[in-house]
Amino acid sequence: VTAIERVGFIGLGNMGGPMCGHLVAAGFDVTAFDVDAGAVARLVEVGARAAGSAADCASGVEVLITMLPAPPHVESVLLGSSGSDGLIGGLGPGAIAIDMSTSSVAVGSRVVAAARERGVEVLDAPVAGQSIGAKAGTLAIYVGGEEAVFERARPLFDAMGDPARVFHLGPNGAGYTVKLLLNLMWFIESVAVGEVLSVGVRAGVPLEKLHGALVCSPANSVFLERDVRMVLDDGDYDEAFPMRLVTKDLGLAVDLAREVGVPVELSALIEQIHRRVRNLYGDDAGEISAVRLYEDLAGVQLRLPRS
Amino acid sequence: VTAIERVGFIGLGNMGGPMCGHLVAAGFDVTAFDVDAGAVARLVEVGARAAGSAADCASGVEVLITMLPAPPHVESVLLGSSGSDGLIGGLGPGAIAIDMSTSSVAVGSRVVAAARERGVEVLDAPVAGQSIGAKAGTLAIYVGGEEAVFERARPLFDAMGDPARVFHLGPNGAGYTVKLLLNLMWFIESVAVGEVLSVGVRAGVPLEKLHGALVCSPANSVFLERDVRMVLDDGDYDEAFPMRLVTKDLGLAVDLAREVGVPVELSALIEQIHRRVRNLYGDDAGEISAVRLYEDLAGVQLRLPRS
Amino acid sequence: VTAIERVGFIGLGNMGGPMCGHLVAAGFDVTAFDVDAGAVARLVEVGARAAGSAADCASGVEVLITMLPAPPHVESVLLGSSGSDGLIGGLGPGAIAIDMSTSSVAVGSRVVAAARERGVEVLDAPVAGQSIGAKAGTLAIYVGGEEAVFERARPLFDAMGDPARVFHLGPNGAGYTVKLLLNLMWFIESVAVGEVLSVGVRAGVPLEKLHGALVCSPANSVFLERDVRMVLDDGDYDEAFPMRLVTKDLGLAVDLAREVGVPVELSALIEQIHRRVRNLYGDDAGEISAVRLYEDLAGVQLRLPRS
Amino acid sequence: VTAIERVGFIGLGNMGGPMCGHLVAAGFDVTAFDVDAGAVARLVEVGARAAGSAADCASGVEVLITMLPAPPHVESVLLGSSGSDGLIGGLGPGAIAIDMSTSSVAVGSRVVAAARERGVEVLDAPVAGQSIGAKAGTLAIYVGGEEAVFERARPLFDAMGDPARVFHLGPNGAGYTVKLLLNLMWFIESVAVGEVLSVGVRAGVPLEKLHGALVCSPANSVFLERDVRMVLDDGDYDEAFPMRLVTKDLGLAVDLAREVGVPVELSALIEQIHRRVRNLYGDDAGEISAVRLYEDLAGVQLRLPRS
Repeated sequence: VTAIERVGFIGLGNMGGPMCGHLVAAGFDVTAFDVDAGAVARLVEVGARAAGSAADCASGVEVLITMLPAPPHVESVLLGSSGSDGLIGGLGPGAIAIDMSTSSVAVGSRVVAAARERGVEVLDAPVAGQSIGAKAGTLAIYVGGEEAVFERARPLFDAMGDPARVFHLGPNGAGYTVKLLLNLMWFIESVAVGEVLSVGVRAGVPLEKLHGALVCSPANSVFLERDVRMVLDDGDYDEAFPMRLVTKDLGLAVDLAREVGVPVELSALIEQIHRRVRNLYGDDAGEISAVRLYEDLAGVQLRLPRS
Repeated sequence: VTAIERVGFIGLGNMGGPMCGHLVAAGFDVTAFDVDAGAVARLVEVGARAAGSAADCASGVEVLITMLPAPPHVESVLLGSSGSDGLIGGLGPGAIAIDMSTSSVAVGSRVVAAARERGVEVLDAPVAGQSIGAKAGTLAIYVGGEEAVFERARPLFDAMGDPARVFHLGPNGAGYTVKLLLNLMWFIESVAVGEVLSVGVRAGVPLEKLHGALVCSPANSVFLERDVRMVLDDGDYDEAFPMRLVTKDLGLAVDLAREVGVPVELSALIEQIHRRVRNLYGDDAGEISAVRLYEDLAGVQLRLPRS
Repeated sequence: VTAIERVGFIGLGNMGGPMCGHLVAAGFDVTAFDVDAGAVARLVEVGARAAGSAADCASGVEVLITMLPAPPHVESVLLGSSGSDGLIGGLGPGAIAIDMSTSSVAVGSRVVAAARERGVEVLDAPVAGQSIGAKAGTLAIYVGGEEAVFERARPLFDAMGDPARVFHLGPNGAGYTVKLLLNLMWFIESVAVGEVLSVGVRAGVPLEKLHGALVCSPANSVFLERDVRMVLDDGDYDEAFPMRLVTKDLGLAVDLAREVGVPVELSALIEQIHRRVRNLYGDDAGEISAVRLYEDLAGVQLRLPRS
Repeated sequence: VTAIERVGFIGLGNMGGPMCGHLVAAGFDVTAFDVDAGAVARLVEVGARAAGSAADCASGVEVLITMLPAPPHVESVLLGSSGSDGLIGGLGPGAIAIDMSTSSVAVGSRVVAAARERGVEVLDAPVAGQSIGAKAGTLAIYVGGEEAVFERARPLFDAMGDPARVFHLGPNGAGYTVKLLLNLMWFIESVAVGEVLSVGVRAGVPLEKLHGALVCSPANSVFLERDVRMVLDDGDYDEAFPMRLVTKDLGLAVDLAREVGVPVELSALIEQIHRRVRNLYGDDAGEISAVRLYEDLAGVQLRLPRS
């Protein structure tokens, strides 16, 4: 197996832009495309080739990476409107299509089926770490697909993420699954912290003391110890992940539970609470806005200084 | 202010027994009582005095400690059936009544009111750390009440718990409040882990890989990293905290939210899910049995080896 | 058994006032009391005797009726602060204490225990039909207690309510239970109608057509066909039952489920949604305000003309 | 406009079979198709023509009716795998495609878009009344689409359903929407009745008396008064609508709420409770099995004799 050299990259937003830049910096021969020409231009400045279209981007590459907002975009780009006129059809046998979007297992399965007919390999490889991690090259990457394909693609992942947090998690779909579930878990904790802190403060316990005691207890979590501090301290609830994507991801997690046959009363409630948050505070409200919901309902402020 | 010497201790179960033993070992002059004569005898063996009745136990002491199963027991022992024939009435002015039970803010308020009439001081000081922590003297202790009273009682707390985790949290009720809320948070995480792990395993991700990726993510928590391992590894879901007390505590937390006027859809759901767990697996089912609920619903096993 | 003649009546508000008036009109010798002297005066005008205190009101009567806002008032009036200095102690053997408040089974049990010691009989007899039904004498009455006691008291119930809807439902507590449960069911339907109509209208179905089709379907209910029309048509959501009492009653229903060991995820959610309604629209918001919640969340109006 | 004569009918199951039979009986020239050849044969016996394939069935007809299990079947039959090779492509300009399945608004929109390109008209017209209503020709029919198209197709609806309950509800999608919402409402009531009756019976109120009082109250519903009796009396919980379709429909209702932007905590909980019912009692469990769930959790029986 020869090393990968030629890479196509589609989707150069807050996340994809810096990720693509790291591949260029690592010496890969990268052709980049985005519907926003300015985003393409910025990558060309640092050494990427510009593709005139998505199809150009897939032409002749060994690996095609997609980093798109939601499952319908992934489906449209890779499979096309008929299921067979997408970019999977433009890849040669042995090429690898890597989707790094937070997409659905269902769309992923259709991509794998179409790719298999053409001898194309597929990995799902969504990421965690937000735009700050994308820029720093410290993303965690959650990969599903065949072990051998993962190993071939590993140098790309190591260039874009933190090599210690590049996880090969199982067959195709395992990456999407784990990404959706860790998001879900984090958003459960967001609501939990909202309820628990607001009740405690209303009951007369000073916020700092309440928070300190919880952090030193078996109820501690990364959200409680770190995340609730960082974001609330900024006073805007929004790091980089808008509520319209939060609700999309939570919907995908509940859909996944439906598909695999697990009743999830808690997760379904968490999705709906975040839909309420979105209705109240807008599509672009920050990812921690469930805490704000409880501040407003309880008439308290849950601002914690950065530690 | 002279140092405390004479202490009465009522409630010598799994928790109270070892806690009382630590006070004896630390040199306090302790009179112990329990409805179970065997429990009293065990404390006498290590140096405590036996009280013939609860009333005896309160007679002439500077501090009276109660460690009882639930708010009605606390109310009955400290206030009696009429509100004025309980042990508060047997304490002299300046004595301190310390309730270390996981009781309710509402009962606590009635105790404070009765005590105030007689010049008796009150602290609420529930603990975390289970019987293993009680034995080791490493409990966390959550104290509500006046600062000066807390300082007088501090040597007792330092003898029973980990001095670094003896928290003075605010006025009377603050200890109960924080204890109920950290329990609540932990039980939210128990259900969250049940849903998330069972969906992931059913979706085909190997349990160990799924767990490992979550632990290395912003979704991590003490429950996820440590507690779910320890208990599941034992194969019995029950460390030391039976579901009948879990549901009692969750009910008290939801009651507290009602009293302070915070709507808590998540917490109310978590209480009801644990009531279901109790109906299905019994009053003595272990505190982590919500995970078992999801194992059974999803038809998977979530056994994790101790790390 | 001789017919009942002398009746004491405590609690002359929106409900109790007209109910007491019907007893006077039916020829009973009624002594009335309320903390609001004006309310007593209004009853005296129509022929009741005024009691100078609650204790006076209970003196020498064959039946003592209480119609009070919530369980703590019932407990305080009938049992007093110590459990033995309330009005039950002022009734003679063979007298009947009838509590018509929407109170709790738990308080009711304590009243029965205290009454039994003195040979006093007890009925729980909460009502449905709101102030309009109280005025018209068409209340439904839900009675728990011994059959023979119920039969003795029946003429009183027939005077205050619709005789065809005076239900003897079982032993003591059965009246409270049924009243709480029918309230609960109605408030579930209120939220259900809020969700269903707001989704339908947002999806583009004209409100009248949507409502008409639902009414003609197996999904129809009294709430959907009648109540949602009546109240929304008035434009104020509030007939006569303020949200602070709604949340009290829903809390009592969930408490009852706890006591009898039935997990009630739906009911607990409905309680919390109404607590949110109360936080948003105030303690005095009308009983149908859950519909308003969904109007506000969905940005639609669900006004239906009176049929 | 000339009257409709030639009709194609695809999907001859428990519902579609009798519905198709009524069209034949009413004198329409009907060509029938199903993947089950036996089902086709039964229709041929009563006077329908047999189609050799779905495509045959659509050839030359003025109206094509589909009655299929779920949205993916509708999409596959009408749009084909590529979106443009389905039966919509085989209909001539002016023909009407009527989908009577309980399908989704989303699939319906894609069908409308494809039909519009070819000058084909579309109605969504799901039904209520179960197989007993299909046989008796008394179905309720919920129609979305243009008024003029509805009027042309009206004779078909009147032949299959109760003319007094054939509702034209609004533009395309309105029929699907109303059908999903009335199902949702009915299943909310199923859970509500399960919680309320089981709490009441556990609290000691005899089932018949409890039920009787609720039926005579503002909490009454068709479910409570009629449906819970009929099905429980049969002792099997399952009239004709299996839990796998119940959960599908509830999922579609929650999906619809997502699409139109209404947070639906209640509906999402009801969906998940029914998913639990399905896991516990099987895909074919009857539509009222949520009541059984509460019987099992509470350890009571809620069998009511047919009135």
